[in-house]
Amino acid sequence: MRPSGRAPDALRPVILQVNPIRHAEGSCFVKFGHTHVLCTASVEGRVPPFLRNSGQGWVTAEYGMLPRSTHTRSEREAARGKQSGRTQEIQRLIGRSMRSVIDLKAMGEMTVTLDCDVIQADGGTRTAAITGAWVALSLAFRKVVKNRLLAASPVRGQVAAISCGLYKGTPVLDLDYAEDSEAEADGNFVLTADGGLVEVQATAEKRPMRPEEVDALMALAKVGCAALFKAQQEALGD
Amino acid sequence: MRPSGRAPDALRPVILQVNPIRHAEGSCFVKFGHTHVLCTASVEGRVPPFLRNSGQGWVTAEYGMLPRSTHTRSEREAARGKQSGRTQEIQRLIGRSMRSVIDLKAMGEMTVTLDCDVIQADGGTRTAAITGAWVALSLAFRKVVKNRLLAASPVRGQVAAISCGLYKGTPVLDLDYAEDSEAEADGNFVLTADGGLVEVQATAEKRPMRPEEVDALMALAKVGCAALFKAQQEALGD
Amino acid sequence: MRPSGRAPDALRPVILQVNPIRHAEGSCFVKFGHTHVLCTASVEGRVPPFLRNSGQGWVTAEYGMLPRSTHTRSEREAARGKQSGRTQEIQRLIGRSMRSVIDLKAMGEMTVTLDCDVIQADGGTRTAAITGAWVALSLAFRKVVKNRLLAASPVRGQVAAISCGLYKGTPVLDLDYAEDSEAEADGNFVLTADGGLVEVQATAEKRPMRPEEVDALMALAKVGCAALFKAQQEALGD
Amino acid sequence: MRPSGRAPDALRPVILQVNPIRHAEGSCFVKFGHTHVLCTASVEGRVPPFLRNSGQGWVTAEYGMLPRSTHTRSEREAARGKQSGRTQEIQRLIGRSMRSVIDLKAMGEMTVTLDCDVIQADGGTRTAAITGAWVALSLAFRKVVKNRLLAASPVRGQVAAISCGLYKGTPVLDLDYAEDSEAEADGNFVLTADGGLVEVQATAEKRPMRPEEVDALMALAKVGCAALFKAQQEALGD
Amino acid sequence: MRPSGRAPDALRPVILQVNPIRHAEGSCFVKFGHTHVLCTASVEGRVPPFLRNSGQGWVTAEYGMLPRSTHTRSEREAARGKQSGRTQEIQRLIGRSMRSVIDLKAMGEMTVTLDCDVIQADGGTRTAAITGAWVALSLAFRKVVKNRLLAASPVRGQVAAISCGLYKGTPVLDLDYAEDSEAEADGNFVLTADGGLVEVQATAEKRPMRPEEVDALMALAKVGCAALFKAQQEALGD
Amino acid sequence: MRPSGRAPDALRPVILQVNPIRHAEGSCFVKFGHTHVLCTASVEGRVPPFLRNSGQGWVTAEYGMLPRSTHTRSEREAARGKQSGRTQEIQRLIGRSMRSVIDLKAMGEMTVTLDCDVIQADGGTRTAAITGAWVALSLAFRKVVKNRLLAASPVRGQVAAISCGLYKGTPVLDLDYAEDSEAEADGNFVLTADGGLVEVQATAEKRPMRPEEVDALMALAKVGCAALFKAQQEALGD
Repeated sequence: MRPSGRAPDALRPVILQVNPIRHAEGSCFVKFGHTHVLCTASVEGRVPPFLRNSGQGWVTAEYGMLPRSTHTRSEREAARGKQSGRTQEIQRLIGRSMRSVIDLKAMGEMTVTLDCDVIQADGGTRTAAITGAWVALSLAFRKVVKNRLLAASPVRGQVAAISCGLYKGTPVLDLDYAEDSEAEADGNFVLTADGGLVEVQATAEKRPMRPEEVDALMALAKVGCAALFKAQQEALGD
Repeated sequence: MRPSGRAPDALRPVILQVNPIRHAEGSCFVKFGHTHVLCTASVEGRVPPFLRNSGQGWVTAEYGMLPRSTHTRSEREAARGKQSGRTQEIQRLIGRSMRSVIDLKAMGEMTVTLDCDVIQADGGTRTAAITGAWVALSLAFRKVVKNRLLAASPVRGQVAAISCGLYKGTPVLDLDYAEDSEAEADGNFVLTADGGLVEVQATAEKRPMRPEEVDALMALAKVGCAALFKAQQEALGD
Repeated sequence: MRPSGRAPDALRPVILQVNPIRHAEGSCFVKFGHTHVLCTASVEGRVPPFLRNSGQGWVTAEYGMLPRSTHTRSEREAARGKQSGRTQEIQRLIGRSMRSVIDLKAMGEMTVTLDCDVIQADGGTRTAAITGAWVALSLAFRKVVKNRLLAASPVRGQVAAISCGLYKGTPVLDLDYAEDSEAEADGNFVLTADGGLVEVQATAEKRPMRPEEVDALMALAKVGCAALFKAQQEALGD
Repeated sequence: MRPSGRAPDALRPVILQVNPIRHAEGSCFVKFGHTHVLCTASVEGRVPPFLRNSGQGWVTAEYGMLPRSTHTRSEREAARGKQSGRTQEIQRLIGRSMRSVIDLKAMGEMTVTLDCDVIQADGGTRTAAITGAWVALSLAFRKVVKNRLLAASPVRGQVAAISCGLYKGTPVLDLDYAEDSEAEADGNFVLTADGGLVEVQATAEKRPMRPEEVDALMALAKVGCAALFKAQQEALGD
Repeated sequence: MRPSGRAPDALRPVILQVNPIRHAEGSCFVKFGHTHVLCTASVEGRVPPFLRNSGQGWVTAEYGMLPRSTHTRSEREAARGKQSGRTQEIQRLIGRSMRSVIDLKAMGEMTVTLDCDVIQADGGTRTAAITGAWVALSLAFRKVVKNRLLAASPVRGQVAAISCGLYKGTPVLDLDYAEDSEAEADGNFVLTADGGLVEVQATAEKRPMRPEEVDALMALAKVGCAALFKAQQEALGD
Repeated sequence: MRPSGRAPDALRPVILQVNPIRHAEGSCFVKFGHTHVLCTASVEGRVPPFLRNSGQGWVTAEYGMLPRSTHTRSEREAARGKQSGRTQEIQRLIGRSMRSVIDLKAMGEMTVTLDCDVIQADGGTRTAAITGAWVALSLAFRKVVKNRLLAASPVRGQVAAISCGLYKGTPVLDLDYAEDSEAEADGNFVLTADGGLVEVQATAEKRPMRPEEVDALMALAKVGCAALFKAQQEALGD
């Protein structure tokens, strides 16, 4: 039924390659099928102005797509001179998702910036980015602890994200581009490994959703994230 | 329990003043308590490039806050030279919400732009904007029909929005600024009068949400929007 | 003779509503007929870099038009990414006009920003803005004195502004849009209540003006501002 | 009494060098004492979008200051990425002044752009620019006529500009920087050779002006412009 | 002697992976040691305005660095809102280099855009980009020919680039970051396989170069490019 | 053979007028035939952030073209809101060239900014700019020494620049616009008076260059710069 031939609750193959980038304090190259996102975590010993002298740290994110990560070339945002609303919406979501599992007070006045750059896009770039960013962030804090800049990692939980949608009336997990462009509704769910919901976003694309459909999407998201949490742990060698 | 003294499921007083602006094809000045938003609908006989010669229309939205709508003055986005990520996120949400109840094909090649400008802010500006924008949009299409530019209004449904959140562990409806800044979680729900969900967004601010909490927020949203749908109908004299 | 049916020396109905905005230190919603401008005064305890450690304060202004304040929708300056030359010219004029009656040294290192936002436009937005901004500024300084941040108000005079023009050869006062778009010449005059001239600007639109015509415009401006000074005093309850 | 040692009604030495720039259709290097402005007129065979198919032409102006034309270096506007409010105000004034003496309908669909670039600044750059721009514009139209693109020049009058101000209580003509920075009031007057007023702008800098003072400034402007009209005619060899 | 331990005329290991990106018409992931650049070629059936109706095609390039490709994180150009002078200099060089071996007239009105994005930087990113871009461009034209959009490839030559520099007085080939930051002089050479020079750039960093030193750099460049030409051919399977 | 009628190794007439601008610490108006560039050197007692507290100074450059310095009017970069890649490339080259002969450590924490503005363009603007900028810079340091802000000038060498190219197969010196637009190759060479090479840039425009052609261009550059060094010394009265 799905263009991808997958079962409704099947993820695409997930690969989380740790530390592909030698300069970054932590990095992860995440693949959800043909969607490939490079996530790097950069640690800096200062905080944005609104946190100066607060004793507290900050975690933030930026997101971008290479111009030819998409089916047809997209304009380069650096050339156009500004980031799109979509880019800003996604990078704000990644940042919020990371902060939901970090004890900012335990970080001291330090900033970690997650750069999530889409190398190849085939739907679900924001959920791949969140899933990979958490791995990069965890690796970066391990390095910070190893370098004795912090006594212990301020990571307090595990976070991952997956998309779900209504495709020809059926709730399906982890939509690729072909599915996403035809879906009646489309949602992104950010979950924690202990069963919490960090972000719930579902948007009707063709017709309003019924409440039980939203419930079904949330149930699928739980299934999908369970597999992602396991993949994250394996990637980190836990 | 609430700073506002309201019951958990109580809205603030809602006022929808129709056509306050003489130049606009449709307009609505919406008040949710001390949150005041001016919504105007402007009709133009052309469409954006991606729809030219498609025979289809477009509905879009822009959002702004007057610099002193807020407790302390915010920088004017026109002076700063760009719109914030938050502004873009909100105006995209308003546009999507309106399009969910409009038959774009029935519009012909015409664009309606909803401008939602916050005159005074006290929490919930995006939900007030959506609720008022639908009234302005409906009024604009009535004028278009009256002027015989279209035979019938392409409005196919009624849409409104409300915020809900977890405040000191309790699900509450229509948060004002004092409640919003202390909430554990915060969500915005866009509903249609026939029971559909157009947009579901819930964000954990202090701790991940439990699934039953998200359900409780959705239930409250349904209560709140029922009252808003009635207020919209009264404003339009239906 | 005038499209508005007014006598050549007649103002439109003037309304000055005080403190419509709860967050601002001072505010005034000013109406010159169908021209409606919201003026807010925001007080901040710091000065621009060029005045730091000077012991002196600053008064400045920003101006904007809501996109559908005009007959046809204007592009939103925040979306376009820059303010037009007209906007900048007007906000510089408002700022200069306010500073002409304020003792900046008596303010201490404090800044007051006047935001003048046009809600509905029908000609004369800059003169309405100046007239209303002075009321908002006066109210803000009253609050500053009441809060014991200053011992006395640094307001040293009363300032108002009105437009005059040559319409079908006749000098007329307070042009509305229909008159303004047909006028041979068009001027804006900023006066003080004690008979001083703060700013004199007259521009030939269709043919150069004769010196006696400029004199006639100035004489009309004096008549118009006398009425505005009275309205300002009544609004402030003096 | 004046820092420059000039009589109150004395201009600085005025030099108008014609066609210093070989590429431009017309150009004039104008000196008012140490204020030096290069004015070029560029003719293009098209009009801005709002005039297309109107059969009418357009005359516009741009203004800039070289970074070290001023006493201390000013930031380059091209590097800063935007033109200041002052720049925009001045270039709008130059454009309006030129259009006041041109029969745009007689131009056909052609645009002339006046570029006025300040090479060295010592007060009065906008009045020097207007005075020189008229010469450059006249030369450009002579070339257009010579090249048989138009049968006759659409120049219908002669325009020049001069500043006047109140310096230590005395009305003085053509202020240089030292005078301008100390003046109580400061005005710019754009006149036509047949006694018309195109633009009257007078601004109180230290105290409101009295009406008779504005009259005195206007009288001085008439004296100054008479000399400028003569210099323009000599420069053009009339 | 070199920090890298390489002989003065030794390149770093060169890897050219063909078509790593499924959406692009041609792509190449090029590695010069730890410098990794992703080059994609995107074909579009239109040309920039200056070539419309000329019957001629265009080849252009854009360049970017991922924020954490560098030792410490660099600001994202899309977030900063403009591209640096260095970025623009490099992308102009890549475009010129490609055009030097393409018969633009034989392309018809088609544009190929080379996007060169630095995934990891360790010196020599522009030379790696040029070397990889030529492979991506060749692959894209093969696809264009295969899809019968052109009868034959308009590639007329083979181009590659390498850096050379003076390190502690010795001319060395293909500087890595550690060498580059200490070099007395630094050059980039773009050569064609038939012995031509497309671009010669050498810059003194610490002291002016002697003519014979420039000659030595050029000789090294020839050695380096010979190896690159061979690697390009092997990558393309020629 | 050359459109200009010059011998292959003949420069255009070179004029270096010293201190034409009264406000600048040093200035030079340089003419290479019809190419006219105004160079000013501005001294400021502070350094960019990356040099603060380093005890070291900085020399930098900005470049611009007046809109009508060119054959047809170019868009004003300040109006367009950004500098072109060409502008940035040239101003970086001028800055590097100046720094190659300045002892930045001997300057103390002081910045000199060279503004090179093209008044009239006829090819070779960047080489004229470099040649004139060195004179302006030398004059500025003389003034700094005269004002006892430094004990001795930090100028350690003499730098000038010239273009060379291949025109109809012949290497020629100092190309004007007519030659430059037809040349097969085009290079810019920055030399020091003691025989050093600061920058070597040669670009193939129509066909790759042969190595001996690059050698011939370099030989011509040496001839041309010898004459420029003499002209610079005469201008400075040495």
